[in-house]
Amino acid sequence: MKVISLNATVTESNDRDAARVRARMKKSGALLINLMSSPGAGKTTLLSRIITDMRDERIGVMEADIDATVDAERIAALGAKSIQAHTGGMCHMDAGMTEAALDALEGDEGDLIFLENVGNLICPAEYDTGAGLNMMILSVPEGDDKPLKYPLMFKESAALVISKLDALPYFDFSVEKCSERAKKLNPAIKIFPVSAKTGKGMEELENWLRERLADWRKN
Amino acid sequence: MKVISLNATVTESNDRDAARVRARMKKSGALLINLMSSPGAGKTTLLSRIITDMRDERIGVMEADIDATVDAERIAALGAKSIQAHTGGMCHMDAGMTEAALDALEGDEGDLIFLENVGNLICPAEYDTGAGLNMMILSVPEGDDKPLKYPLMFKESAALVISKLDALPYFDFSVEKCSERAKKLNPAIKIFPVSAKTGKGMEELENWLRERLADWRKN
Repeated sequence: MKVISLNATVTESNDRDAARVRARMKKSGALLINLMSSPGAGKTTLLSRIITDMRDERIGVMEADIDATVDAERIAALGAKSIQAHTGGMCHMDAGMTEAALDALEGDEGDLIFLENVGNLICPAEYDTGAGLNMMILSVPEGDDKPLKYPLMFKESAALVISKLDALPYFDFSVEKCSERAKKLNPAIKIFPVSAKTGKGMEELENWLRERLADWRKN
Repeated sequence: MKVISLNATVTESNDRDAARVRARMKKSGALLINLMSSPGAGKTTLLSRIITDMRDERIGVMEADIDATVDAERIAALGAKSIQAHTGGMCHMDAGMTEAALDALEGDEGDLIFLENVGNLICPAEYDTGAGLNMMILSVPEGDDKPLKYPLMFKESAALVISKLDALPYFDFSVEKCSERAKKLNPAIKIFPVSAKTGKGMEELENWLRERLADWRKN
């Protein structure tokens, strides 16, 4: 498992960098998915489940963190290709950093390449990483009011995964209210309530990912 | 309940602004507490409990959010003085923004003045707000590995509140492991495991806050 240290690029050139990353992934046929959420919403647990369930696809994972290598170690233990990227204190990944991480992972050789962004509901939504798909997780314990408070991430995501659904009996969280609030910000957003622990809802999400990959290769 | 919009000041002058805020609060005798955590860790719920329990103290709350006024409305409903500050997309509060919020709240007239910072484990730890006390919350569902991944906030906080303790049976979280990891980063950190829902551990935390207020006025 590789650990790399990244440097942020200047904001002005990020759109150009993102376009270059997107063209590169288009050429390779691998779909790059930018996965965003709060700290502790269950990004790594969701990815672990997807890796275990989707053995037929070549999956790679770039773990972005300020510090530590715990997430990349969890992914590597499942036999998936993974690298740990350290953002040098930065609260998000930009396109240039993503490009360096893709080089380290050799991410062109794959089907689904996940970028597990830094745990943060704000900054990652502001930077185009060059991904073909933005996906976010909101976990049940965080509360159904989050679309009201962090609207940009809900606007920028093609899919919202509502995670830790098994914890629903213990928290005051309405899937319906949360979905309504998310759809008000982004009417096209796909919503997948799941429990990576019990497996509930995972099949729908995984089928959708397969469709997105087929679309990416077609268009 | 007031809603104000804030503009970030340049980083270079933040230390000067923070020193000015601290001197102002010292003069007034009110203790400014900067409360930080991830989105959905339970900042507003903890404050609601503190307000209800500590009726003998004059408590004021400045709610900082990118958008929405839900938190300030919850606090105002309890009869406490509160304002909502909008950060204009910024992922943290700086000292100049805190000063403007204090003006809007008339925060010099009080005992404990809480700044509920933007939900984020990264950026708020990087900016001195001028508070007399930094306090952070980590909720049980977020996981006990967070000190490894977001070390700066644990280093900058005088106290760590481990919240949602009532959810402990449903999550793989070790209070002991989390405390060890936090103390490795910051040996002096005080740790308060609490449930704002059941009230467990709240008395210890509230007594400590009273002591901190007495100290602030003495020194």
